[in-house]
Amino acid sequence: MNERIIVTYHVGAPPIEIAARAEGLAIEQSVECPLAAVTEQRIRDEILGRVEAIEPIGEARFAVRISLASATAPAEPGQLINMLFGNSSMQPDVTLADVELPPAYPVAFGGPKLGLAGVRAKLGAPRRALTASALKPQGLAPDALASLARRLALGGVDLIKDDHGIADQAFSPFAARVPAVARAVRAANDSRGGTTLYAPHVSGSLDDIRRQLEIVRREGVAAVMLMPMIVGLANFDLIAKEAEGLIVLAHPSLSGAQRIAPDLLLGKLFRLLGADATIFPHHGGRFAYTPGTCRALADAARRDWHDLKPCLPVPAGGIAIDRIAELLAFYGSDVMLLIGGSLLAAGEQLTEQAARFTAEVASHGQ
Amino acid sequence: MNERIIVTYHVGAPPIEIAARAEGLAIEQSVECPLAAVTEQRIRDEILGRVEAIEPIGEARFAVRISLASATAPAEPGQLINMLFGNSSMQPDVTLADVELPPAYPVAFGGPKLGLAGVRAKLGAPRRALTASALKPQGLAPDALASLARRLALGGVDLIKDDHGIADQAFSPFAARVPAVARAVRAANDSRGGTTLYAPHVSGSLDDIRRQLEIVRREGVAAVMLMPMIVGLANFDLIAKEAEGLIVLAHPSLSGAQRIAPDLLLGKLFRLLGADATIFPHHGGRFAYTPGTCRALADAARRDWHDLKPCLPVPAGGIAIDRIAELLAFYGSDVMLLIGGSLLAAGEQLTEQAARFTAEVASHGQ
Repeated sequence: MNERIIVTYHVGAPPIEIAARAEGLAIEQSVECPLAAVTEQRIRDEILGRVEAIEPIGEARFAVRISLASATAPAEPGQLINMLFGNSSMQPDVTLADVELPPAYPVAFGGPKLGLAGVRAKLGAPRRALTASALKPQGLAPDALASLARRLALGGVDLIKDDHGIADQAFSPFAARVPAVARAVRAANDSRGGTTLYAPHVSGSLDDIRRQLEIVRREGVAAVMLMPMIVGLANFDLIAKEAEGLIVLAHPSLSGAQRIAPDLLLGKLFRLLGADATIFPHHGGRFAYTPGTCRALADAARRDWHDLKPCLPVPAGGIAIDRIAELLAFYGSDVMLLIGGSLLAAGEQLTEQAARFTAEVASHGQ
Repeated sequence: MNERIIVTYHVGAPPIEIAARAEGLAIEQSVECPLAAVTEQRIRDEILGRVEAIEPIGEARFAVRISLASATAPAEPGQLINMLFGNSSMQPDVTLADVELPPAYPVAFGGPKLGLAGVRAKLGAPRRALTASALKPQGLAPDALASLARRLALGGVDLIKDDHGIADQAFSPFAARVPAVARAVRAANDSRGGTTLYAPHVSGSLDDIRRQLEIVRREGVAAVMLMPMIVGLANFDLIAKEAEGLIVLAHPSLSGAQRIAPDLLLGKLFRLLGADATIFPHHGGRFAYTPGTCRALADAARRDWHDLKPCLPVPAGGIAIDRIAELLAFYGSDVMLLIGGSLLAAGEQLTEQAARFTAEVASHGQ
């Protein structure tokens, strides 16, 4: 690992100040001290960040490319994000826009174990777009959540995940909820010859998540969902490896509190660390993502990148059935559409509404 | 835990839209689905977030107070931040400004084990302001870092921490660095009757951190530093408990503080989860914190809050010796001043410069 990492920051600064700001960033994200304190020539030559390019991208706004020594960031996810954006995250005019990694990183991290093709294989759906829904609202007891899951599975939804707000609460403890929902989904699958998968939300400390994974394995559940920005990237990476054989679904909770480009964080980095599928808000819903952001995110998840498997983009965030054609035209069929609340609002008609959702998606091509 | 958590968000919105935005936030951070999907009356009554107050705080800017059911966020730090700001972190016009917790949370989390008074006791410094410095640049080998530490300790600095960029890299592996620095500090203490403490940076997955803690214990080191936003809040909380007897120092890396109020995150929440001391950028340095932010942060760390011990504020981020009087006037003496780079730039005069730093601080009152 003696090659350099190329990091792109977007920096708001007057043109007359940008050269100094770029140098400041190169120092901040490497030696983090005045150059007078860097007495070893080897450290100035190898460890110090280097400004490789400065390019205007708007009024008083620049793309700054800085190369960092990979020796400063071993293939440990926490240290990698620390070197990419640790301190500069506190400078409000700096955004982490992109990173190019030497090949040693993808080799070490490994990316998705199943990836897009592995998810399709588990579902027996080689070509068509995929469907997903969520169990909510939180506050429901395990049997009520299991009943929702049964009806969504009877409607043929490919994947049913816990709402990310559902953790290990007294009203629905993990150890009671996961077996109940898993059995309901299995029964529905048996009754219609379906392949619906359940992705419980695993959360807490690494110890907590491992305890929850044992229950997941015991119940024969085939997928899990985690929030990488809350559980910690290093723990996410570790769980993605320990969950080998399970679909690992990344949830974007708390990802917006930092100025990190969504395509980089939710597309590229979560994929690098092993997300088989990555959930994000589609534009036009409750969140402010633009069509360009969504396109870039889906591209980052799916395109050829080192030898990593593609990761399945999962647009969500307040989309409804009447937008399916629009979403499939936008993303193509290598996508999983996640419709939660607007399905659940169907109440007694939940199975029928879920069936409408899955039929509509399937009608766009097997 | 059936009391309610009071969360304050700052929301940018036209006055005509703020009522709907506030309702939207209350839903987003609780049931996260259309009300039509919430069929149980009990969930509408108890689990659904409630808008408690909306107050203008500026042009098209409002403070929105929302109460959340504590049942949705058990005393698990990841789930707590998930319920406070998980999805709404992706709405760029929303800032998490403050939170008021029912007493069950401080009881469950426990806050600092040593706190401000415990740090003072370890240093035998009951009243005066405290001093700290950092080992850097990264890239130095263990013996070079140990030499810096020895000279800073000879200058009487109270606490010496690893730069947060120093993790477990090939040029300075944790297992080699920590013993080398610990012994250098001990030797310096022996030679001058000092009490300088060393805080190595522990990082990585929870497994990694536990392995590192074993080395810390074996070497008789009395403090550790962690980055809560990178290791994950739940793991930070766990380590703060497992590190009982050690000073736990929180580093703000990746705290991207503009969307979570710094006084809330680095002051209140890190203290709640067990930080004995919290590092943050003082205003006028390389970061954009205002004096008001710094004041609020130090207040949140130190003031009476439930039965939690006060946490030591550690202003840093490019401050130099010539600002000591200003900083002590600003923070008072319940503070630890962290001067890193500008001390290290003294080169051969490092011990003398460190002695000037500690003498200047001490001269403001024992």
